[in-house]
Amino acid sequence: MRIERIDLFYFALPEIQDRSDGSQDSFLLRVRTDTGLEGFGESDSAPLLALAAYVMPMSHGNLVGLSEVLIGQTLDSTEDIRRLYRLARRRALDMAQFPHAYAAADIALWDVLGKHLRQPVYKLLGHDANLPKRAYSSNLFQETPDATEALARRARQRGFRAAKFGWGPMGHHGEELDVALVRQARRGLGPEAALMVDAGTVWQDDDATALRRARLFADFNLTWLEEPLSPEAVAAYGRLSERSPVPIAAGEGCHTVRAAEDLLENGRVAFLQIDPGRIGGLTSAFEAYQRARARGAVFVNHTFKSQVSLAAAMAVFAGDAAMPWVEFCQSDSPLVAGLVQDPIRIDARGEVRLPERPGLGLEVSLAGLRDYARRAVITLDGRTIGASQAVD
Amino acid sequence: MRIERIDLFYFALPEIQDRSDGSQDSFLLRVRTDTGLEGFGESDSAPLLALAAYVMPMSHGNLVGLSEVLIGQTLDSTEDIRRLYRLARRRALDMAQFPHAYAAADIALWDVLGKHLRQPVYKLLGHDANLPKRAYSSNLFQETPDATEALARRARQRGFRAAKFGWGPMGHHGEELDVALVRQARRGLGPEAALMVDAGTVWQDDDATALRRARLFADFNLTWLEEPLSPEAVAAYGRLSERSPVPIAAGEGCHTVRAAEDLLENGRVAFLQIDPGRIGGLTSAFEAYQRARARGAVFVNHTFKSQVSLAAAMAVFAGDAAMPWVEFCQSDSPLVAGLVQDPIRIDARGEVRLPERPGLGLEVSLAGLRDYARRAVITLDGRTIGASQAVD
Repeated sequence: MRIERIDLFYFALPEIQDRSDGSQDSFLLRVRTDTGLEGFGESDSAPLLALAAYVMPMSHGNLVGLSEVLIGQTLDSTEDIRRLYRLARRRALDMAQFPHAYAAADIALWDVLGKHLRQPVYKLLGHDANLPKRAYSSNLFQETPDATEALARRARQRGFRAAKFGWGPMGHHGEELDVALVRQARRGLGPEAALMVDAGTVWQDDDATALRRARLFADFNLTWLEEPLSPEAVAAYGRLSERSPVPIAAGEGCHTVRAAEDLLENGRVAFLQIDPGRIGGLTSAFEAYQRARARGAVFVNHTFKSQVSLAAAMAVFAGDAAMPWVEFCQSDSPLVAGLVQDPIRIDARGEVRLPERPGLGLEVSLAGLRDYARRAVITLDGRTIGASQAVD
Repeated sequence: MRIERIDLFYFALPEIQDRSDGSQDSFLLRVRTDTGLEGFGESDSAPLLALAAYVMPMSHGNLVGLSEVLIGQTLDSTEDIRRLYRLARRRALDMAQFPHAYAAADIALWDVLGKHLRQPVYKLLGHDANLPKRAYSSNLFQETPDATEALARRARQRGFRAAKFGWGPMGHHGEELDVALVRQARRGLGPEAALMVDAGTVWQDDDATALRRARLFADFNLTWLEEPLSPEAVAAYGRLSERSPVPIAAGEGCHTVRAAEDLLENGRVAFLQIDPGRIGGLTSAFEAYQRARARGAVFVNHTFKSQVSLAAAMAVFAGDAAMPWVEFCQSDSPLVAGLVQDPIRIDARGEVRLPERPGLGLEVSLAGLRDYARRAVITLDGRTIGASQAVD
C-alpha cells in the first residue's frame, strides 16, 4: 500500500497549568493509505513544534519537512517502516526536533501496518506473547506530605499495587521535607505496594546530594529512584548508580538510541525509561529496549500522554517477562483516556494488558475530543503551508 | 539592564536547492535592552522550527516558549547569561529543538553584554588574546573529480591555504570514485595546502568501510577525515579512531555538551567540530571546547551560516594556540556575508582574525537582506501568536 495522506491534530485543555503534567495537550497524527486504512500515533512534543516539523519548507538537503518525506511512500512490511525511519532520519539529519516530531508518524505506521497484516504491533516487533504488566500509577508530589499521603491512598483505592510520586516540591526545600514526602507516600500506599520516587532532575549534576537522599529514602523500600540528575549528567549517574542503595532509573530525556546506550553503559542505570513519543517512535524505542535487555537492565516505558502512547509503549516489551512494569498515567485529563473508545484499564491484580487486536489494538475516536481541537495555521509570505486539522 | 524585546527574522533565498548547503536560509534573532542596546545571534536551525520554539504557548511546566522565558530578565554579567541558559534549559527541558532554537538567543546575549561592558565576547569568555586562525574553505564535492579539481584550484586562487571537500557523490558510487575525488581535490589544491575530507555520515555505522577509505585517502595527506559515520555511531567511531591512519573529526551533530563528551571519550575523535548554533549557543559551545581541551583534542568550529555565526564560533577558541583552524564557509549566498557591513576576510597568509571590537565585533546591517526576509505567521484559533519580522 501507499501512504496517501497525513493529518495532524493539536489538542489542548482550555487552560494549561504551569506544572510538570504532560497530559495537558497532545500532538496526534493520522496516516491514511490508498487501501483505505488509517493508523494513529502520538508524539510527546509541543504540538506546534511537531506541526512545524511536518509542514516546514526545505531548509537544505539535510533538513526537509517530514510530510514531504513520507507522502507517496510504499508500506507493506516492517522493513518498510525501518527504511522510512532511516530515510526520514537522513532527510532531517539537522533537525533537533526530529525524534519528538517523527515519533507520531512512526507509531502510526506500525499501527496501520498491523491493521494491514492483521497482527498486533507487539507481534510485528517480534514478541510471541502479550504478558500482563504491573501498572504503576504516576502521580505528582503534592505541596505537603499529608496531601501526598492522601493521594497515595487514592491510588491504592483505585486498584494500583504500585505508585510513583514525583516533581512538585521534591528537592526544593531541603532534606527534611524530601524525606517526609517519601515517608507519607509510603504510609498512604501501605507496606505492600511498590513505591517509586521521581526527583525530576532536581539535583542536576550533584550526585553527592542525590546519594545522601538515596540513603535516606532506602528506609522506605523504594523500587527505584528516578531522574535524580539532569539527562546530560551521565558521569554523575555512573558514580551514583555505583553507590546508591536504591536502584537508579532514568531515560525519559533520551532523544536517540545512543543517548540510551550511553546512560546504560556509562550512567549504569538499573531501569531504562524510554518514551517512544520522544525517541523517534517504536522503531528506535525497540532498539533501546534491545540495548537494555543486552545489559541486564529493566526497560520501562515513560508515558504521560494519551492511551495511544500507552499502547505503543507497551508493545515494545509486551512479551518480555523480565520487564514487568508499566507506567500508567494517572491524570484526569480528557486527553488521556478520551481518545479511545475502549481504554486500557487495570485489573483486580493491578495489572494491565494490551488488547489482542491488530495494530495498536485501540479504537481511536476523535469525536470525544472535538472541543479540545486547536486550530494552528502557519503561513509563509501569505500562503498557508500547514495547519492542524479540525475533528471531522 | 533588562531584556526588553526579542525580534525573530527568517531569511531565505528565493529557491532552495536540495543539497547539503546550509547557507540557503537563516534564523536571526535580535535582542533589545532597556538601555537601548541591541545584540544579534543566529541559529543553525530550520527557521520555522526556531520561530515556533520562541512563540509557542506553554505545553506544561517543562515545555515553555523561549521568548516568554527571556523577556524581562536582567542581564548585567556573564553569570546572568549562564543563569539564563540554565533557566531556559530547565523551562524547556522537554523541547528537543531547544539547542538549535536557543542558540540564537544565547549568542545575542553575549553580543549585547559585550557591547554593554565594552568588551569583545572572546574576552568575556576568558581568552586573553585574539589569535589569527588558519581558515579552511569549506566546499562541496562536485559531481566529477575534474569539477572538484577546478573548485579546489579556485579556493587556492582566492587565497586559501586549506580547503575541505565534502558530501556530494562521496561514498555513493564506490571506492574508485571516492579516491578519484580526493586525488583531484589534492591536485587542484597543490601539495602545500591542507586538505580535509568530509564524508557526510555516508558509511553510517560501517566503520570497516570507513577504515578502508581512510587507508586509501592517507596517500593524499589529509589533515582529517570528517563524519565518516552517523552521529549516533559512537562505538563505531571509537573503533575507527583507534585504527585510522588519518585523524578522525566529528561533532557537528552534537546537540548537548554530553554528546560532545561522549564523542571525545568513547568515539575518541581527534578533532571536535562544534556548531554554537546547534549546541545551544556560546555558553554550551565553550563548555564543549573545555572538554576537548582537557582531552587533548582539537576544537574546531562548524559553521555554514552567516558571519554572525562565524564570529560567535571564533570567539569560543580565539585565544587558544592549540586550536589553529577555522571553518570559513565558502558559499556565494548573500546570507553569508551580506548581513554584516565589514565581513571577516582571509588575509594574505590565508588567516582570519576576529575584529577587535565589543560584542561579536560585527556591524550587522539588515538592510541588505530586505529582499530575503520571509514573513512567517503562526496563528492559534485565529489569534496571531508569533511572526517573523520584516526588515525595518
